[in-house]
Amino acid sequence: MELKIPHSNKKRVVIIGGGFGGIEVAKRLKNLDIQIVLLDKHNYHTFQPLLYQVATGGLEPGSIAYPLRKFMQQIPNGIFRYTEVLSIIPEKNQIHTAIGELSYDYLIIATGSTTNFFSLPQETSSKMMQMKDIPQALDIRSFILENYEAALLLDDFNKRQSLLNIVIVGGGPTGVELAGAIGEMKKKILPKDYPELDFRKMEVHIFDATDRLLNTFSEKNSQRAADYLKDFGVNVWINTAVTNFDGEKVYLSNGKTIDAQTLIWAAGVKGLPINGLPEGTIVGGNRISVDEYCKVKGFGNVFAIGDVASMVQEDFPKGHPMVAPVAIQQGTLVAKNIIADLKNRTPKSFKYIDKGSMATVGRNRAVMESKGIKMGGFFAWIAWLIVHIITLIGFRNKLTVVTGWLYNYFTYDRTLRLIIRPSKRKLNKRELS
Amino acid sequence: MELKIPHSNKKRVVIIGGGFGGIEVAKRLKNLDIQIVLLDKHNYHTFQPLLYQVATGGLEPGSIAYPLRKFMQQIPNGIFRYTEVLSIIPEKNQIHTAIGELSYDYLIIATGSTTNFFSLPQETSSKMMQMKDIPQALDIRSFILENYEAALLLDDFNKRQSLLNIVIVGGGPTGVELAGAIGEMKKKILPKDYPELDFRKMEVHIFDATDRLLNTFSEKNSQRAADYLKDFGVNVWINTAVTNFDGEKVYLSNGKTIDAQTLIWAAGVKGLPINGLPEGTIVGGNRISVDEYCKVKGFGNVFAIGDVASMVQEDFPKGHPMVAPVAIQQGTLVAKNIIADLKNRTPKSFKYIDKGSMATVGRNRAVMESKGIKMGGFFAWIAWLIVHIITLIGFRNKLTVVTGWLYNYFTYDRTLRLIIRPSKRKLNKRELS
Repeated sequence: MELKIPHSNKKRVVIIGGGFGGIEVAKRLKNLDIQIVLLDKHNYHTFQPLLYQVATGGLEPGSIAYPLRKFMQQIPNGIFRYTEVLSIIPEKNQIHTAIGELSYDYLIIATGSTTNFFSLPQETSSKMMQMKDIPQALDIRSFILENYEAALLLDDFNKRQSLLNIVIVGGGPTGVELAGAIGEMKKKILPKDYPELDFRKMEVHIFDATDRLLNTFSEKNSQRAADYLKDFGVNVWINTAVTNFDGEKVYLSNGKTIDAQTLIWAAGVKGLPINGLPEGTIVGGNRISVDEYCKVKGFGNVFAIGDVASMVQEDFPKGHPMVAPVAIQQGTLVAKNIIADLKNRTPKSFKYIDKGSMATVGRNRAVMESKGIKMGGFFAWIAWLIVHIITLIGFRNKLTVVTGWLYNYFTYDRTLRLIIRPSKRKLNKRELS
Repeated sequence: MELKIPHSNKKRVVIIGGGFGGIEVAKRLKNLDIQIVLLDKHNYHTFQPLLYQVATGGLEPGSIAYPLRKFMQQIPNGIFRYTEVLSIIPEKNQIHTAIGELSYDYLIIATGSTTNFFSLPQETSSKMMQMKDIPQALDIRSFILENYEAALLLDDFNKRQSLLNIVIVGGGPTGVELAGAIGEMKKKILPKDYPELDFRKMEVHIFDATDRLLNTFSEKNSQRAADYLKDFGVNVWINTAVTNFDGEKVYLSNGKTIDAQTLIWAAGVKGLPINGLPEGTIVGGNRISVDEYCKVKGFGNVFAIGDVASMVQEDFPKGHPMVAPVAIQQGTLVAKNIIADLKNRTPKSFKYIDKGSMATVGRNRAVMESKGIKMGGFFAWIAWLIVHIITLIGFRNKLTVVTGWLYNYFTYDRTLRLIIRPSKRKLNKRELS
């Protein structure tokens, strides 16, 4: 069955995924005499860099989500369909979705990435929390709050401790920002909400298997981030891997264990490619191998961009970092090259312009590096705020994020401590037995 | 097993339910030398009058929810437990909860109300949407948006129509406000989001079994409300009941049918009493019969307030209206009478001070009645806005609601068209088969 879309004799560009890369392609092609079809399994774009603030009750999901149909209002030649893509048949220029088949003239795979649990068995990883989309961030919020409610009911010190403690695995920007936010909550918010619990005894741990946090940053900034986290009461562990987790105990590569029921896995991501690409196309990190034009090898009209694409270039022997700026720049390139192709012009190859990186570690504290400048502290934090506000999509989202941040800053509070959808786990019964 | 709370030799007041009534009692008793225990099955207070704006994408759930633990920060002698109360044993001054037993010196039942489907069989009512809490409001939001996504995929005119149409049963303030908001969406928002669908063909219906909408208001205001709704393209049906619904067709008492897959039942509420009260205590509307002191008959220390309480007084032969002001005033009374009891003073009886009622019907339009004044239009709408902002709990909530409303007003938009938790129903598969 064919996917129902308005009939058109124009060339059709199909974009799979409305993340940073996908929407950039659509924006750049909006004035062309072609048909653009954007597909996504969510009906909104997610501003992933702020997911950790949703998880920790600082922002509402609606502040970091942007409806894709509202985005498409500015793409007059665009059509959106809310569906999952099941597979592609590149030899036939066709894709299969949950709502029918669709043919394309150009295909852009911008499906992004998902949590990488590496070789952990599913039985173990299923007990861990992850934070790659809004429902997962809300699950973390509910789970942590439910644990504290359950902790109140226990006399057993170790059991209570395991409900209070939070372990974050992975010392990249996501892990560091999350650890900082939880450290802040531990200090400023939780003791007021739960006067019966002793939060000085709550432990927040962050683990990295390498010899420092933020290992894509300078050593100085790694050190700063670790110091900031320690100020917020976070235990920073380097050269230490998590080897196992049974839902109550975390097992470490150094032989030690930590009692904790909440383990958030931020130790890696992997590409989310689509079935149907030939063998050999999928390379390390489950990414799709592309040439310097973001073209999937062997096909003239199939592109992959962003997290899911792996382009080996000088300085990037394992592909580019899985961050928004790469996705946006590759989206721009692919859009330009499609225009070039339509006009029989020569395509351009990709050159990543690294504008720098930054990570915040809570109130007044961040690290940033850009074009040789490396700094930390308050001004890095202000820069972090400004960059995130500017890159957020949608005026209402900018407005509500600024409002929320101002409120949180001046009140030392995060009021979104709401368990709207309780986790499946029946805490009360289980914990008490 | 006993519910674990900090030991105390003080008298204990247990409040079941953190709605308008329950929190009022806690606030009024906060300076007494007693122990207050507040129990709720949610960890937040819900500002129910604005639920319909969450359902229609105008506000985020976090704007109308207030964490009960944050509320309890201002109740120094208060303890909160997140749990469901299973039953009470008034002879033993004890309650049973999902997390253990608890004894009380004074018990306040402030459990509120739930949707009343009257004699409709469960098989029928389970196909209808309801809107008494935040998860339900979010379900309505997701369900409507999923229906439009599905409608895009259909060629069959009747099937598509049944996905577009929305039926609201019940012409009270909830039904009228919801119908107005949906009428506005139909006019201003949906045609932009779904340019492929013809929203002139979308039908919004509101039904009331009596001879007018808002039948607790004056006839003039009923007429105004009906006129406003018609301006927003809503079909107003009076003297008409919905007799059946099979998930695709709505059957009416006049023999007609309407194709619609979304039916929101706002035709009635009933009390949500607790197991364990003696027979005869539960009266009409599933409410708990109380005397003029809000005392449950037969017990000196068990009170019921708000929606769940039925106090027969002059002018109120069937009990007071199930609205927030009654709950707040009864909460105040019970708190004062508990203080009186502790000091061996005479309790006061309840006298409802009706401050009036109001309902908004969308942009610039509302009706209100207070102390003889009956008005409609723009000034009633401004009054509605102000009253709701003032009565909202929490500064952050006031702030985000005002921000959201200003944005919505000036942009003619509601940007929260997000399907965060899709409904269980697998639309795509079903609709296409």
